[in-house]
Amino acid sequence: MNDSDSNSNAGFGRVAIVGVGLIGGSIAAALRQRGLVDAVLGIGRTESRLQQAQQAGLVDEYTTSHAGVADCDLMIVCTPVDHIAEDVQELAAAAPQAILTDAGSTKRMICETMNQEMRFVGSHPIAGSEKSGFEHARADLFDGRVCVVTPTKDTTDDVEQTVTRFWEAIGMRVVRMSPQAHDEALAVTSHVPHVVAAALSSLLREADVPLTGTGFADTTRIAAGDPQLWTAILLQNRASVVRRVRELEERLRELRVFIEAEDTARVTAELTQAKKIRDALAER
Amino acid sequence: MNDSDSNSNAGFGRVAIVGVGLIGGSIAAALRQRGLVDAVLGIGRTESRLQQAQQAGLVDEYTTSHAGVADCDLMIVCTPVDHIAEDVQELAAAAPQAILTDAGSTKRMICETMNQEMRFVGSHPIAGSEKSGFEHARADLFDGRVCVVTPTKDTTDDVEQTVTRFWEAIGMRVVRMSPQAHDEALAVTSHVPHVVAAALSSLLREADVPLTGTGFADTTRIAAGDPQLWTAILLQNRASVVRRVRELEERLRELRVFIEAEDTARVTAELTQAKKIRDALAER
Repeated sequence: MNDSDSNSNAGFGRVAIVGVGLIGGSIAAALRQRGLVDAVLGIGRTESRLQQAQQAGLVDEYTTSHAGVADCDLMIVCTPVDHIAEDVQELAAAAPQAILTDAGSTKRMICETMNQEMRFVGSHPIAGSEKSGFEHARADLFDGRVCVVTPTKDTTDDVEQTVTRFWEAIGMRVVRMSPQAHDEALAVTSHVPHVVAAALSSLLREADVPLTGTGFADTTRIAAGDPQLWTAILLQNRASVVRRVRELEERLRELRVFIEAEDTARVTAELTQAKKIRDALAER
Repeated sequence: MNDSDSNSNAGFGRVAIVGVGLIGGSIAAALRQRGLVDAVLGIGRTESRLQQAQQAGLVDEYTTSHAGVADCDLMIVCTPVDHIAEDVQELAAAAPQAILTDAGSTKRMICETMNQEMRFVGSHPIAGSEKSGFEHARADLFDGRVCVVTPTKDTTDDVEQTVTRFWEAIGMRVVRMSPQAHDEALAVTSHVPHVVAAALSSLLREADVPLTGTGFADTTRIAAGDPQLWTAILLQNRASVVRRVRELEERLRELRVFIEAEDTARVTAELTQAKKIRDALAER
């Protein structure tokens, strides 16, 4: 917070949401529903879309220029991961007093571009959908979900504390880790699953479609995600993604060899181990 | 139907459900709810379980012996795929007049063991869950879903017609194809997704669990399925499964190489193609 006035709601003052899509729109909805802000400013490229977001009651005001953020207290950058670093640089220059964070699915490359002068810490709220656009925004999207906050040696305590408090205020549980550790974990929990869902989808021929059930539908659901957004995520985290896809290929090869050899005991052992891991996940 | 009396409900007379688990129990529930039977006889290995199924209102009577089926008109074998062929042989001997079908997820190996004397045609109702046990049975499990019926040169018209009418009566859309074609298609739509879900689950370390979202949960959901049942399915369809897992490994390798080479255009093209296929599935 840059002054006590903006704390009038015991909230976050004037908040800019940069990129009003599914995530940005849902943050805006959560902030307004909980009365945590004096005003939400929506920032985007397309005026007509921003106007619709205002009409939908997500933002109070909007602008297509980063210059309009001068009096903001907090700015959340919800643009595609390959735009975040540049957006943060520009926004930090336009409002040097404001605290900045983002909502990108990768953290290492983004956080590497930051420096001590910037009041930024990286975030990744782990919530979303294969859908995109603020039309699918939901004020409860973040309820009970985890948000990773990734401080570096350049991050000051007040920035980290405000950003942590921000995600907690919209219902999230904050986990603190390094950008590198985040990217390694997310390769397994999110990025490789996307690669797998896409590869599996691509095996389906039109004639097989009537023979799909809920299993195929669930296993491939995330393949419906935006290809441009996901390409950027996979490339930004390519070292970890490549290593883990390779590991998955190896697991598949092993299982395939056991099946081919009719090695009932080993196939059952592998499936039992996988079930154990999956059951533990369901019990959380 | 072996006589006109058993058609008294314009239904299926006295029906035996062999294996009263999720699928068998749901068939029983659907038949009783729709008034399509004179009586449902539950057949299983464990008397206490059958008694519970009777108390739950799923079956009218039960027996642990195949000898008890003599006066049945129709028998649906819902046992694990590696037990079905033997169960059908025994049941056909105990009630030569009855029409028989099954609910197994594989068809080629099962149907190969049948002959002209047996009043059997293979079926695969494509519905289910990662859960097992009749406690999860639902009368509406089959509503609007596809059931594959797999006649061979040995199948007589009356058997195929009765079994087709049976699945349609509990709400399914019947698709007719050869046992071999069924197994080839299901390798892609169901069996390989299971292998993938298991392989992906096995990559998850305990520390990563808090960082999983709905994407990982959906992509791996079916890995919670029963390991013994799935081992039997994968081994019965091993030729097709092995071929398709190999194909998937190749797709993953291709995508991995494009990611490693930072080939944005090709990664986007692959994800776009996968999204197109997945979107078409969602629109069905």
